[in-house]
Amino acid sequence: MIDVALVGTGGMMPLPNRYLSSMICRHDGRLILFDCGEGSQVSLKLLGWGFKNIDAICFTHYHADHISGLPGVLLCIDASERKEPVRFFGPPGLEYFVRSLCVIAQGLSFPMEFTEWSPGKDHFAGDGDLTLRALPLRHRTPCFAYNIALSRRGKFDLERAKAGGVPMEVWSALQKQNDADIVYNHKRYTSDMVLGPRRRGLSVTYCTDTRPVPALVPFAKGSDLFICEGLHGNDDEKCAQHMHMSFAEAAEIAKKAEVGELWLTHFSPALQNPAEYLPAAAAIFPNTVIGRDRMKKTLRFMDD
Amino acid sequence: MIDVALVGTGGMMPLPNRYLSSMICRHDGRLILFDCGEGSQVSLKLLGWGFKNIDAICFTHYHADHISGLPGVLLCIDASERKEPVRFFGPPGLEYFVRSLCVIAQGLSFPMEFTEWSPGKDHFAGDGDLTLRALPLRHRTPCFAYNIALSRRGKFDLERAKAGGVPMEVWSALQKQNDADIVYNHKRYTSDMVLGPRRRGLSVTYCTDTRPVPALVPFAKGSDLFICEGLHGNDDEKCAQHMHMSFAEAAEIAKKAEVGELWLTHFSPALQNPAEYLPAAAAIFPNTVIGRDRMKKTLRFMDD
Repeated sequence: MIDVALVGTGGMMPLPNRYLSSMICRHDGRLILFDCGEGSQVSLKLLGWGFKNIDAICFTHYHADHISGLPGVLLCIDASERKEPVRFFGPPGLEYFVRSLCVIAQGLSFPMEFTEWSPGKDHFAGDGDLTLRALPLRHRTPCFAYNIALSRRGKFDLERAKAGGVPMEVWSALQKQNDADIVYNHKRYTSDMVLGPRRRGLSVTYCTDTRPVPALVPFAKGSDLFICEGLHGNDDEKCAQHMHMSFAEAAEIAKKAEVGELWLTHFSPALQNPAEYLPAAAAIFPNTVIGRDRMKKTLRFMDD
Repeated sequence: MIDVALVGTGGMMPLPNRYLSSMICRHDGRLILFDCGEGSQVSLKLLGWGFKNIDAICFTHYHADHISGLPGVLLCIDASERKEPVRFFGPPGLEYFVRSLCVIAQGLSFPMEFTEWSPGKDHFAGDGDLTLRALPLRHRTPCFAYNIALSRRGKFDLERAKAGGVPMEVWSALQKQNDADIVYNHKRYTSDMVLGPRRRGLSVTYCTDTRPVPALVPFAKGSDLFICEGLHGNDDEKCAQHMHMSFAEAAEIAKKAEVGELWLTHFSPALQNPAEYLPAAAAIFPNTVIGRDRMKKTLRFMDD
């Protein structure tokens, strides 16, 4: 199960009810934050998922509307008395940007760890069943899309377990994770000896800010949820000029990547009512939704 | 005439309808901003006084709740295409803090000029009839209160002008400012030759964050408006511990300084309804008002 929530859906400048860019995923009680624009601490408080379990903060890039809320969020994590490290991921300059902003958030209760993505390359960070991938985008500054995926182990396969001579005493331990490795009565047993093929997992792709790039289609392929920027409704000229996407361009990628659902976000402050432009996207990819701050969804494994 | 508006009335952490510390004064179309907490750009936009005429930004100190909104506000000033310098005033470290935060607000359209106040001293900056004074406070870090004052020239004094032999041709020019200095028919004439004694001007004092200090009383003496922090309602212990003031402490200063009106601001997020504690202040200084974001007032010269 993954819970996903939009924290802020504003691009460039915030509006009274539209905080700046930020999205959060929750799995097994742990939180990963993506971007952290101005006002994120307020929206996160309203969301109510807490601050203490924010294990990682991933930045797409360092334009102010994606990072200006960081000091406030770090001070909230500090106030939660977190002691474990917070991991940061992002394009080159990550530690420089974070530490510069931390001049107003000093003496934090937790250490910070930095992983900078090299520009122009795909990246990967794994953490058990949960994996994080990053894809370089095409913006005015190095920028990455993110995919967070939860794998799902195969079903217990009785025939296989018996055929492999796996003793009943270790069946339960072996089927509880993908990569269990157990020694019992001087013999070694692994999960693959009792499990069928892996089943369909869950994944979320988060993409902002960029022009459409072909690699986004395989990157987002089959995502249950594709969260994508749509800065300027249908103004293709402005989108091209500022290296952003229109609603229709986001929908084209959603269609080609055969995602489950498209959430549009990162709206220009000039878009007072983004729903006005929804038809342009829905004509291409019907399952398109206009994002709102604190819109959330729980993604669950499909029944077999 | 001075227009004053509270931009944000929150202390420590913002709430959905309470942005972090900031106050703005307007005189003759020009703006001076005091502090700039997270969300200031949104509240300033709602206020509608514009960004282009922000000539100066004065910081009391650099705790995040007083400066975290700076990058957003600078980007708004930039978007207004201001070309004139913006002047910054504040305790030591001013340029370091501002430039550190500017890692996410680079390439601004206007130059920045910095005036750092030495700790522990009074300071003064004059600009024609409008003057700015700064007073050192007692907080956990160097912190200053501000007083902004608009002087008012004396009335035209016909007897005096005649007695001094000032020709009628220069009366108008001499009475339009306090310090006019005109040569006419090879003779020199100054404003004081046609004006009576200066009349009562206008002044606003802004004070946050601090324990009560005796010097505040003469500093705020006779202010038309005294904007003062009241972080913790009536929790004197917390106030003393965190170097802040209670509502009653602020009211004591207002009373001794014989100000016109006290506006309380900089409320702890734990104070959901600051009005609950109003009686504690009003019992000491009846003309006390609980500040709200974008509460504003126009101060006008008194009739003679």
